[in-house]
Amino acid sequence: MDYFKTRRTIRRYSDRPLSDELIADMLDKAIHAPTCGSMQLYSVVVTRSDEGKSALAPAHFNQPCLTGAQAVLTFCADFNRFTRWCEQRGADPGFDNVQSFISAALDATILAQQFVTIAEMNGLGTCYLGTTSWNAPMIIDALSLPELVVPVITVTVGYPAESPEVQPRLPVSAFIHTEKYNPNSSERIDSMYGEFENLPANRAYVTENKKDSLAHVFTDVRYPREANEHFSHIFTEMLRKAGFLAEKA
Amino acid sequence: MDYFKTRRTIRRYSDRPLSDELIADMLDKAIHAPTCGSMQLYSVVVTRSDEGKSALAPAHFNQPCLTGAQAVLTFCADFNRFTRWCEQRGADPGFDNVQSFISAALDATILAQQFVTIAEMNGLGTCYLGTTSWNAPMIIDALSLPELVVPVITVTVGYPAESPEVQPRLPVSAFIHTEKYNPNSSERIDSMYGEFENLPANRAYVTENKKDSLAHVFTDVRYPREANEHFSHIFTEMLRKAGFLAEKA
Repeated sequence: MDYFKTRRTIRRYSDRPLSDELIADMLDKAIHAPTCGSMQLYSVVVTRSDEGKSALAPAHFNQPCLTGAQAVLTFCADFNRFTRWCEQRGADPGFDNVQSFISAALDATILAQQFVTIAEMNGLGTCYLGTTSWNAPMIIDALSLPELVVPVITVTVGYPAESPEVQPRLPVSAFIHTEKYNPNSSERIDSMYGEFENLPANRAYVTENKKDSLAHVFTDVRYPREANEHFSHIFTEMLRKAGFLAEKA
Repeated sequence: MDYFKTRRTIRRYSDRPLSDELIADMLDKAIHAPTCGSMQLYSVVVTRSDEGKSALAPAHFNQPCLTGAQAVLTFCADFNRFTRWCEQRGADPGFDNVQSFISAALDATILAQQFVTIAEMNGLGTCYLGTTSWNAPMIIDALSLPELVVPVITVTVGYPAESPEVQPRLPVSAFIHTEKYNPNSSERIDSMYGEFENLPANRAYVTENKKDSLAHVFTDVRYPREANEHFSHIFTEMLRKAGFLAEKA
């Protein structure tokens, strides 16, 4: 069980080849993860070619872990396949709505995490690209995703060429609540975040960015309000175009 | 690695006790799962009391796996704690939008799946309750969740009192796409779903429900359009009330 406490994200990969068969075999294991109502509301687009990676790179702000990966897996919420099946059998599918998108997005994320665990237990390194939901329209174009298919999370994978430290986490008491939510009082906030703020790497971010606190690094540099709101508008319009916000008058 | 291909959902649990310490220990391992920008945008409310389970039961349509579980874990997208921390440091957090909700929902789902894997590898049985996103407002009330905290997925857990078969899945070729999305042609649909439709359990559902096909069972009985749209409206209003759809003019 040691794996779970020592795992870490790997962003640099070696030249050691990763076969299509191993990727398919790991996905074949991962699909036994739980799925909403046995519907398997996901698809995975596997990008291995240099052209394919180049087409995806701008959507992920040209992060080097993408172009350097042996494979890039885009996990998509997919109600297209299920809807086509229902139509083909003469049934009336009604999955062009937010709730159906949420079900499919959870399915895709559960599958992605199961794949990550299996890959890492096989000695591979992985990195999630959260930029997937920010630039979903660019990814939809690059991968020719049809309606009711939305990219949710991307995983880069390859054999590790680095061995970073295990990343620190907040104490488990910060996020476990017993029976009811325990409000985040000022005292609890200070006690939860104190150690995190004092990590040498985090102190360095504050100095480098000339900010008052680590929190300012997050709000002013990494995830500023304007960017979050900009990508929220893009996301909502993408959902509408993908057919998940169909309004029935 | 056999675990991954043989895992299955467990809905009936024995009386064998599950300690608070083991739950906390498993969550302490699970938090090493990947998380968006090291922000850990989740909370877990652990319900163990009979009163607590009774309060949650209606939101989950009184599914017996909830009341019979040793513990019920509600995994929440949580931007409250992070926002409070930013405010307390004098920073200006801007996480009251859809994109931030999606980031937190993915974080909570990844944590939930990591917990499920760890629990099952410890010999426990688990069941996801997808009803969480349908009746989120009832769960918010029952667990006293503050703003910017939204329940995403629920896991019931306990030692197994049943040993069901491994659930069938579509062939891996149904959802792997190479470089570009491979459209779902009629031929592909028939070939993907043929085996699934012919499973004895699925044929029985069609007969019992007096439907024309298995697809009709999904569209008319399990996930009808009216229900999906009804719960979509509830979900959107819940997101607004939770503060994730704040419009800045």
